[in-house]
Amino acid sequence: MNLNDLPTPAALIDEARMARNIARMQQRMDALGVRLRPHVKTAKSLAVARRQREAGASGITVSTLKEAEQFFADGFDDILYAVCIAPGKLPAVQALRERGCRLTVLVDSVAAAQAVVAGEHRFDAMIEIDTDGHRAGVKPDDELLLAIGRTLHEGGAVLKGVMTHAGASYELNTPEALAAMAEQERSRCVQAAERLRAAGLPCPEVSVGSTPTALSAQHLRGVTEVRAGVYVFHDLVMANVGVCSFDEIALSVLATVIGHQPEKGWVLTDAGWMAMSRDRGTQVQAVDYGYGAVCDEAGQPLHGFIVSGANQEHGIVSARGGAHDDLTARFPIGTRLRILPNHACATAAQFPEYAVIGRDGALQRWERFGGW
Amino acid sequence: MNLNDLPTPAALIDEARMARNIARMQQRMDALGVRLRPHVKTAKSLAVARRQREAGASGITVSTLKEAEQFFADGFDDILYAVCIAPGKLPAVQALRERGCRLTVLVDSVAAAQAVVAGEHRFDAMIEIDTDGHRAGVKPDDELLLAIGRTLHEGGAVLKGVMTHAGASYELNTPEALAAMAEQERSRCVQAAERLRAAGLPCPEVSVGSTPTALSAQHLRGVTEVRAGVYVFHDLVMANVGVCSFDEIALSVLATVIGHQPEKGWVLTDAGWMAMSRDRGTQVQAVDYGYGAVCDEAGQPLHGFIVSGANQEHGIVSARGGAHDDLTARFPIGTRLRILPNHACATAAQFPEYAVIGRDGALQRWERFGGW
Repeated sequence: MNLNDLPTPAALIDEARMARNIARMQQRMDALGVRLRPHVKTAKSLAVARRQREAGASGITVSTLKEAEQFFADGFDDILYAVCIAPGKLPAVQALRERGCRLTVLVDSVAAAQAVVAGEHRFDAMIEIDTDGHRAGVKPDDELLLAIGRTLHEGGAVLKGVMTHAGASYELNTPEALAAMAEQERSRCVQAAERLRAAGLPCPEVSVGSTPTALSAQHLRGVTEVRAGVYVFHDLVMANVGVCSFDEIALSVLATVIGHQPEKGWVLTDAGWMAMSRDRGTQVQAVDYGYGAVCDEAGQPLHGFIVSGANQEHGIVSARGGAHDDLTARFPIGTRLRILPNHACATAAQFPEYAVIGRDGALQRWERFGGW
Repeated sequence: MNLNDLPTPAALIDEARMARNIARMQQRMDALGVRLRPHVKTAKSLAVARRQREAGASGITVSTLKEAEQFFADGFDDILYAVCIAPGKLPAVQALRERGCRLTVLVDSVAAAQAVVAGEHRFDAMIEIDTDGHRAGVKPDDELLLAIGRTLHEGGAVLKGVMTHAGASYELNTPEALAAMAEQERSRCVQAAERLRAAGLPCPEVSVGSTPTALSAQHLRGVTEVRAGVYVFHDLVMANVGVCSFDEIALSVLATVIGHQPEKGWVLTDAGWMAMSRDRGTQVQAVDYGYGAVCDEAGQPLHGFIVSGANQEHGIVSARGGAHDDLTARFPIGTRLRILPNHACATAAQFPEYAVIGRDGALQRWERFGGW
């Protein structure tokens, strides 16, 4: 298999870029004196997670039980399931734990904590802290925090600590604002840990993270581990946030030109939203890349060209602002392009496998999985 | 397996609703005197396509070679690949044809037509006609139409006819506008066929269709077949267009409540955008349903509740306009909900299988596939 006869659309990984992304994040965490627990929901690939582990990562973070099962089967046995647990999933968690998987569940309510301690099994649990108001979690100064902690600890669960995810960092785009958000994430999560400890409750772990805050934190005092996911591939949203450059984006979609609408300035490709995903994450950012930024087959950006629209299996490539030369001549039918994605987690999820371009130019297939 | 212990998120099919949708479309096509060639890209399920065939469908439409391969392996041998062909895919098409699959390719350019006739193999080909300016195809009065027709016919391909898809119908929402678009789709495609025939070229087939136009056409004189896809499930976009009601939507996502943010009026579920897809098709329509409309576990709509936001594995349910009673009491942790999707094609694609609720209430698993 080589790139020239790879059927399109295909999800490409540039292995050298990915390796640099992994090394950069690991070195940063080492320098900050914290463990790195990568979120494997981005790639859902054993081959990718093995490289993160080889680089020094300690444990993994998952977003589904399917991920826990798949990675545990490959020998990853220290896993944080970083979505508040649905009580109905506890039997499946228990089954994995009884097979030797150190799988930790998350709660942010007394009701869920009660479900965790309702049976005989002694679960490991963490409490989700809301440090930025963007999604789930209990505020560090909320009375609920201690009530949840007591329910877990006194009910017989192993209260491992607190965790937070400053997803609001995705909305920022200056180093100063990102550093401030990283400090907010750190300080509020540490505050929650200190409240638990002051109440006599155990809280050995303080887990924070998102790719933008991990790459922007000035120090991480009081934090024991950082979680981040999308850094492994990066994407256009991260480029707009300002934590990667175009040439650090390791995931792209290989597409073929299948038609033209010259009057409209459109080049049609076979990478529609089924390939790119419907994620329009850059729509609200400084630079809107439509459904993706266009590069040539070798990966060189064709600045100004974006995927301006998409149907299920049709991508519409056009010049930003509509200015264009003769696109039919420039992009003849059969031309192959690489499209950088808005959101790597969403685009990768559209594919059952990756085509990986190694440092030697040779192509490998790496499987990925989906589902729950 | 029963609904009560089905892990969430899960893609549910209401089999009785789906059967009614299939019957309604087939009866309509029978009454209009045309064949129905369902687009199987919506469900990508052999079990679903078999039911369409049993109801009277004639052949299928696919959007990828993977679909052609999968359905041919199940005995579907009359297949239109309704995306203009990338020349690099012709060897795979030929291989399928040599195994007995009557697979027809599509072109809308002389360059692609030349690629189709470049080798020894005699492909079946159709020409895509642009009847609404929304995507691909050649205009019925464009000189290119005859040039493409001659390239195919004189080059030795079997010129089967013309096809069009009035995707612009998705942007309409009155019976009058839809009927007018159906007539525009019909008349312009028939016009293209007549031009080819007048030039001495063969054009036995005139293939039109989209779910909204198929359900709105007053007559289909000159048309031989209609293609439609999403009607098999319907969705919120189709409800906004006005061609289905809520209780005809046969696909939903089963979700579990995992948390609350009472200050924000949020109920968090485990069906985020990975389950619903990132499709926000209703955003530009009369009623914006966010990432989906909320029903109780039995499928009764909870009017006013929508999935107002989504992270990868978190859905945020809230009352439209923000008014709400005590959501923590109304939707306790562990509550199960069904979410109707914006766009069935996109939501279904997030799942490797369907859980099908039969007329007797029993649950079955039907596989679906993805990829290319």
